[in-house]
Amino acid sequence: MTLSRRTVLAAAPALAAASSLPLTAGSAMAQTASGQAPGFYRYKVGDITVTAINDGFAQRPLEGFVRNAELGDVKKAMEAAFLPADRLPISFTTLVLQTGGKTVLIDTGNGDSGAPTSGTWLANFRAAGFDPANVDTVVFSHFHGDHINGFRLKDGSAVFPKAEVMVPADEWAFWMDDAKMNAAPDAMKGAFQGVRRVFAPIAKDVKQFAAGKEVVPGVVAVAAPGHTPGHTAFAVTSGSGRLMVMSDTTNHPALFVANPDWSAVFDMDADGARATRRKLLDMVASERMQLAFYHAPFPATGYVAKDGNAFRFVPVQWSPAI
Amino acid sequence: MTLSRRTVLAAAPALAAASSLPLTAGSAMAQTASGQAPGFYRYKVGDITVTAINDGFAQRPLEGFVRNAELGDVKKAMEAAFLPADRLPISFTTLVLQTGGKTVLIDTGNGDSGAPTSGTWLANFRAAGFDPANVDTVVFSHFHGDHINGFRLKDGSAVFPKAEVMVPADEWAFWMDDAKMNAAPDAMKGAFQGVRRVFAPIAKDVKQFAAGKEVVPGVVAVAAPGHTPGHTAFAVTSGSGRLMVMSDTTNHPALFVANPDWSAVFDMDADGARATRRKLLDMVASERMQLAFYHAPFPATGYVAKDGNAFRFVPVQWSPAI
Repeated sequence: MTLSRRTVLAAAPALAAASSLPLTAGSAMAQTASGQAPGFYRYKVGDITVTAINDGFAQRPLEGFVRNAELGDVKKAMEAAFLPADRLPISFTTLVLQTGGKTVLIDTGNGDSGAPTSGTWLANFRAAGFDPANVDTVVFSHFHGDHINGFRLKDGSAVFPKAEVMVPADEWAFWMDDAKMNAAPDAMKGAFQGVRRVFAPIAKDVKQFAAGKEVVPGVVAVAAPGHTPGHTAFAVTSGSGRLMVMSDTTNHPALFVANPDWSAVFDMDADGARATRRKLLDMVASERMQLAFYHAPFPATGYVAKDGNAFRFVPVQWSPAI
Repeated sequence: MTLSRRTVLAAAPALAAASSLPLTAGSAMAQTASGQAPGFYRYKVGDITVTAINDGFAQRPLEGFVRNAELGDVKKAMEAAFLPADRLPISFTTLVLQTGGKTVLIDTGNGDSGAPTSGTWLANFRAAGFDPANVDTVVFSHFHGDHINGFRLKDGSAVFPKAEVMVPADEWAFWMDDAKMNAAPDAMKGAFQGVRRVFAPIAKDVKQFAAGKEVVPGVVAVAAPGHTPGHTAFAVTSGSGRLMVMSDTTNHPALFVANPDWSAVFDMDADGARATRRKLLDMVASERMQLAFYHAPFPATGYVAKDGNAFRFVPVQWSPAI
């Protein structure tokens, strides 16, 4: 889990994949007996095929990460999960949905704007058999950089040239408001500028949606405000299959599913995020719905069960059968 | 998790890979946007590179699987793990160790002798960049078919033609004893015959080892009898890295780590297996060692923690960094 030259090299295929070379992680690795398996995992929700695509990870110092817990308690939660004592490895996992004959993304990862241990999304997406040129729709859960930067490389090029783009209306209203950007503290101005970098060139074509709306066949937007003003979860339904895409309703489950009242530094409205988290976790636990969390360990899908006044996360059993 | 035409087709690459075609799962999948990612996962134990290789899974009816528990209690354990209510999906994961300049296997999977949902080992092994012709050593934990049949295809051909073969002396003494085979109940005679099918052609070359012996650099055999007479775990040590290869000390952790006194039907000596299980789980929990379980959900590596009078299994966080 430590950073190393090897780790940094592992991120390199993303850059190669961003070019027009038909390189896949799978075929490259087969020659060398080194490197990790490509980070994708496929599963079905009724007739919808879901593919989880990993975009690597970033590490955050543990100190200061949880706003309302003692560091010692956070360390205990890390120890219970057999995670490092001083830093939190936060992974990034987006979703591809093949639904209604379309290829739909929910969020796009860090692109080439994230930590050196991230940025593997395109290589993993290609290894899963997808071509960015054939993405029909990109749906965003919210506008933090690790969710939107994969949509546009630093050089300004669009990664999904023909995709329709759908965004939560409340999220658009907040981040694209110049008055809010000007009034924001300096430390937050970069986030506003990052949103403009990604969306300004296509602003007139972006489709905004409200909570409750079916954004693509079988996928309904669910209001989940707090983490950001327009942060959105998605209920995916097909036949008897159900999946709740939790987005950033929690950050790492080992901390925030196990301690749903803890607030990560990334939650813009800590109280709102906590209320949303409790409400959604209660609901999906009582319904035993399958879940996808953006920041759960890859493949970032499983279930939550009530555990006293908190919850526990149970990952799915990996299966070669789809 | 249900069986389907798709599931059966997923097993087909193993047969192709067994031929001389340079087919890899990775490159085949990249063309089609279907199929699961190749089932391998790489991690380091000090200087030793470990690669977990999945061989698919088999499903067992839940009824009768645990000898000394009520079906209702077993169903509750399955429900707590969000597993099916009527059948247990048991996965198979072997290990490749790159140690001391050698490529070493611990166990070999089902080969073409297992359930139709198994037999994907060779495709996954090749996808991880390995060639069966270059395996130096095969170490066996015990002689059940799902561990040894991958060594020799049904047509009699050896899959690892140049490999040195190392087996637990107590296991060899039991299964290769004609008197024991003749005295065995009819239902068990097939297991004896299966052992002969695999090992008889190379019997004079097999190297037997005792518990406590360093079988290959950094890998020490640990007595773990009960599941079978010579069932063996392995302590892997390199620098500060430590891994306990638990073999079949437990079957599925959701049942037998959580309920270490339960006996699976596969345990030949239930009391002996239970004593070994308690002893090893206590030891690895108190030392917080990383573990590999043959029948844990892929990638079949994690930790156990004490949980009252039982234990809980915590899978590792998947990482693209090795």
